[in-house]
Amino acid sequence: MAGNSFGNILVLTTFGESHGSCIGGVLDGFPSGFPVDLDFIQSELNRRAPGSSLFTSPRKEEDRIEILSGIFEGKTTGAPIAFIIPNKGHESEDYSHLKDIYRPSHADFTWEKKFGHRDYRGGGRSSARETAARVAGGAFAMLFLRSKGIMVTARICEIAGFKIPGEETRVLEYLKGLMDSGDTAGGIISCTIDGLPAGLGEPVFDKLQAGLAKAMMSINAAKGFEYGSGFAGTRMKGSEHNDAFTGRDFRTSTNNSGGIQGGISNGMPVFFRVAFKPPSSINISQETVDKQGNPVEFTAGGRHDVCFLPRAVPIVEAMAALVIADHMLTPAPAG
Amino acid sequence: MAGNSFGNILVLTTFGESHGSCIGGVLDGFPSGFPVDLDFIQSELNRRAPGSSLFTSPRKEEDRIEILSGIFEGKTTGAPIAFIIPNKGHESEDYSHLKDIYRPSHADFTWEKKFGHRDYRGGGRSSARETAARVAGGAFAMLFLRSKGIMVTARICEIAGFKIPGEETRVLEYLKGLMDSGDTAGGIISCTIDGLPAGLGEPVFDKLQAGLAKAMMSINAAKGFEYGSGFAGTRMKGSEHNDAFTGRDFRTSTNNSGGIQGGISNGMPVFFRVAFKPPSSINISQETVDKQGNPVEFTAGGRHDVCFLPRAVPIVEAMAALVIADHMLTPAPAG
Amino acid sequence: MAGNSFGNILVLTTFGESHGSCIGGVLDGFPSGFPVDLDFIQSELNRRAPGSSLFTSPRKEEDRIEILSGIFEGKTTGAPIAFIIPNKGHESEDYSHLKDIYRPSHADFTWEKKFGHRDYRGGGRSSARETAARVAGGAFAMLFLRSKGIMVTARICEIAGFKIPGEETRVLEYLKGLMDSGDTAGGIISCTIDGLPAGLGEPVFDKLQAGLAKAMMSINAAKGFEYGSGFAGTRMKGSEHNDAFTGRDFRTSTNNSGGIQGGISNGMPVFFRVAFKPPSSINISQETVDKQGNPVEFTAGGRHDVCFLPRAVPIVEAMAALVIADHMLTPAPAG
Amino acid sequence: MAGNSFGNILVLTTFGESHGSCIGGVLDGFPSGFPVDLDFIQSELNRRAPGSSLFTSPRKEEDRIEILSGIFEGKTTGAPIAFIIPNKGHESEDYSHLKDIYRPSHADFTWEKKFGHRDYRGGGRSSARETAARVAGGAFAMLFLRSKGIMVTARICEIAGFKIPGEETRVLEYLKGLMDSGDTAGGIISCTIDGLPAGLGEPVFDKLQAGLAKAMMSINAAKGFEYGSGFAGTRMKGSEHNDAFTGRDFRTSTNNSGGIQGGISNGMPVFFRVAFKPPSSINISQETVDKQGNPVEFTAGGRHDVCFLPRAVPIVEAMAALVIADHMLTPAPAG
Repeated sequence: MAGNSFGNILVLTTFGESHGSCIGGVLDGFPSGFPVDLDFIQSELNRRAPGSSLFTSPRKEEDRIEILSGIFEGKTTGAPIAFIIPNKGHESEDYSHLKDIYRPSHADFTWEKKFGHRDYRGGGRSSARETAARVAGGAFAMLFLRSKGIMVTARICEIAGFKIPGEETRVLEYLKGLMDSGDTAGGIISCTIDGLPAGLGEPVFDKLQAGLAKAMMSINAAKGFEYGSGFAGTRMKGSEHNDAFTGRDFRTSTNNSGGIQGGISNGMPVFFRVAFKPPSSINISQETVDKQGNPVEFTAGGRHDVCFLPRAVPIVEAMAALVIADHMLTPAPAG
Repeated sequence: MAGNSFGNILVLTTFGESHGSCIGGVLDGFPSGFPVDLDFIQSELNRRAPGSSLFTSPRKEEDRIEILSGIFEGKTTGAPIAFIIPNKGHESEDYSHLKDIYRPSHADFTWEKKFGHRDYRGGGRSSARETAARVAGGAFAMLFLRSKGIMVTARICEIAGFKIPGEETRVLEYLKGLMDSGDTAGGIISCTIDGLPAGLGEPVFDKLQAGLAKAMMSINAAKGFEYGSGFAGTRMKGSEHNDAFTGRDFRTSTNNSGGIQGGISNGMPVFFRVAFKPPSSINISQETVDKQGNPVEFTAGGRHDVCFLPRAVPIVEAMAALVIADHMLTPAPAG
Repeated sequence: MAGNSFGNILVLTTFGESHGSCIGGVLDGFPSGFPVDLDFIQSELNRRAPGSSLFTSPRKEEDRIEILSGIFEGKTTGAPIAFIIPNKGHESEDYSHLKDIYRPSHADFTWEKKFGHRDYRGGGRSSARETAARVAGGAFAMLFLRSKGIMVTARICEIAGFKIPGEETRVLEYLKGLMDSGDTAGGIISCTIDGLPAGLGEPVFDKLQAGLAKAMMSINAAKGFEYGSGFAGTRMKGSEHNDAFTGRDFRTSTNNSGGIQGGISNGMPVFFRVAFKPPSSINISQETVDKQGNPVEFTAGGRHDVCFLPRAVPIVEAMAALVIADHMLTPAPAG
Repeated sequence: MAGNSFGNILVLTTFGESHGSCIGGVLDGFPSGFPVDLDFIQSELNRRAPGSSLFTSPRKEEDRIEILSGIFEGKTTGAPIAFIIPNKGHESEDYSHLKDIYRPSHADFTWEKKFGHRDYRGGGRSSARETAARVAGGAFAMLFLRSKGIMVTARICEIAGFKIPGEETRVLEYLKGLMDSGDTAGGIISCTIDGLPAGLGEPVFDKLQAGLAKAMMSINAAKGFEYGSGFAGTRMKGSEHNDAFTGRDFRTSTNNSGGIQGGISNGMPVFFRVAFKPPSSINISQETVDKQGNPVEFTAGGRHDVCFLPRAVPIVEAMAALVIADHMLTPAPAG
């Protein structure tokens, strides 16, 4: 099955481990002759990079993208666009203490169970560092979408139950407390896609929301996905939930459908929300087990994100952009 | 893209419209030499059929499966298993009143926008009748999983905000009221998968939860998906959310991870929840528009489900079984 | 891997065994709103049916196609087109003598080795009867291509080494002799695709010739494929082989390239040749083995094709049409 | 469709242009825990590199592979194996004379027609340099196959019509003459796969020979493919062509089937032949056209292969190894 490729027409394949020489990706199926704004690609990577806000790890990483192929004289050629993002500064770190233990709620146990063998340095391929390649690939998709007047915009709408931006002052204080105690927080990111034409989505299995759900749930730490009225919509009556058409432009007065009906975009804004759990790496001593199942005490140490949400915003946007661009590039059945 | 196939190793392709001669499917990649209990397949279809409970439409349909290929002397041959489920009793119905209008929150507008042309009889391919082929295909997957000791069990946990089974008496009364007023209700279905070995899931894009999310969000009327701690988990601290390993069997004391860590099953039960909106077909007059965007008044008429949830239970199970069987049949990387 | 689907954008999935109730297929990704000439589809099936010429089996089969879905009011809807071709008249035949032996150069041994279990009635799914579903699916593709001015035309160019049409009188006599002695003959079919635009083919792996080669080599009894100058081109010098451009229309004076350069059509006619071995079913006693490897004597009996070539012509055309239509429906990279 | 990936379970994605910074690939689905002999990988690349024999270009390229991911402590991790092969020494070359002309029988015209825009430096992505990434990816596949006792061995069997090794002295003289006159020669490579178990191949479309044919026909300059008796088999009678089983080991006395019956390996050696045309780059003045269709005179200049065959041998082996490894990793249907 080879689960490191995403998409049907526009396909992103990613590779690389958190502590190898680089992470990277290959984007195949991108239109040819498209002028590439590499500064935009880099700026998206910068948004994902650690150290940009109070909430996240102060560790300094430089995520500089290097293009290996697919661009000539500033434009895409239609050949696969390969890129790498070198990893920096891990040479001197010692991960041998992680070699034989399974950290709670990390992928240590399951990856070892599946692959027999794992790169234990900082999570290897299961590390969220892998998402940098998604952000780079997604940035290309976003450039394409912008040329079509489509905007993908995510934002944090909740952290640890606090509403954002409404309770932003309170949440900062709360997060400072967590940081002091070595603990972490989760939250919810919402995303809106504006400017989408009607007609995107491939029923019955590749409905637009199905692709978005898969994309979001493939992001590290994602625990839930809902679109339009979502879980709250289960408490509405049909007469309340139905979106009335308003006239000749076929827009609807409400948008409980979240811009999708029968798996196909209807021209209204598409919106969805993604739930993220709190990071598993906490600076608090935890009981866990080693490979033999013997109890061991473990503290993550180092500097970790108190809250991953700010860095997840560009990742959500990138994955959404990949899904939407894939559908935009899918041939229309009506010719 | 051809969105009517689902799966990688075990692939279900479905076809058929609600008011054509039949709906059906082709299941390719199913193991050979497997004895098929056709009574079980039929009984799963019966669970999805209308008329089985107060909540759902009393219309009587006979969903009899006919096997066309892939089974010889009672066993699968490894060749594709094709089946059809004939449609009954629609010959005399008149759907011409649906030809030129777009029903609110149905797929009428979007399918016409996408395909140029639609089968307007009862929704055509966008009808929930399509899910009968999923239930049939999923029943084969379930037989396979049972032979491996894996059980997939869904149940209604909430209808219109009422907890099930706790508030079942109250919800019956509530639904009766909706039925009288021609209105409809949504709800939430939970699903548990027991007996799963550790090691299923293909990071980084085909994580187990990503496949389940896609599967669930491809079901008609599904609006949300969450697994393990889900949306509620966003309000927990990392120290509360982490699942502690308990010893040599590598089980965990809590299961906020929902049986999946790093996209790979960990041997604990997998569980998730799916939100369903209330059905769009209500026996209440609604303002909508015709193809030209002119306002028209519309009442669904006929008999429709007040609440689709009871019939959605076997659909959720079927789609989950297809995902899990696909992963069970995927070659293990460690050989 | 589930090898019963073919194509990327336009996907044909076939099912059915030679002696089950039917064979059939599902064609997904076909454009919507396309008027379907079912008489043409049926006429293509008739070309493949046995009994149409001296060369082939006089057995009478009726290959009547039944459309199950995807067509409404005479036009495609964009939903999957499912069809079946019922099998006739095999109920009374006795195949028990085939159950325990492996016929020479048939698929008996390999299918049993692979699947553990096989439908021994007339070859089951390995029978050339399976190709009727290809012809039906390919006929849809051909209708689509014709609407674009593309013609796919195959013809027999060699039987048993005799050139066709040049040596047609001699070959008829030769085949009559083979029929009398119970023996069989192979041959070569050539195929030309006219009217193809430049630009079809997806380097580097899905080059146009690679897709055609896979398509042809998936046909029963095919042993070789060559395009343009083919094997003979290996004996030319580069200076002889190069096709010179002739002017502003970018046509070439020779066509050793067979209409494809760098894996992409160049607007010249595409042509290729396919080698077919003689049928394995001969009415001559052969020594073979049973399942235990014990020697047994075997004579095919019944009536079989002396030469499969006439019936293979529409199969070659159908598979070529599927490949070309798939590429025609693939989005162009230059937008 | 994104044609830069090959395989189903074991997927090789390649990228890079002949005159960009590097070419490379990502191999996904390779088993984990497998010890990697990088010297072997490098030695395969060396076999493909130019300058290794009289027949080929004396230009010196250093094809040094650099592994970017997927290997840890000398073993594969099950994560994607990414690698690059830097391009050397093209910085100073001037390709501006190629910018506006279409070389005869090259991909210049078709790539520009398809992609609108091309990397004209030495062919860009259409250059045979792309095959270095195939050789590297195929070398991993070969290591895996060797661990299972499977050997893939290709050899030149014909150059410009001269039999190899029989007429090797004469062909050397012939090639020297071509070199002097600036001309080129094609030929035929045969390949044998020994040690293959019975049961590989996925009927009806992914028959073993269909996958091999696609693989071979995707190689630059390949013009034909045949297996077993091939084109010559079309002149045999069925009674001559059928391969008789010899006894309890189910081996056959002849192998006209080329080790494949009904699309599935039968345990006998698989063998096939691939035809290659003479290289299009000749040091002889040719009339061609520019982008406007105006006649221009063109001489390739530089140093080119008189005969590509020696360098194609490891490419044929690599592609065959990728096909066979993919089938070896495909789950067996009988469990």
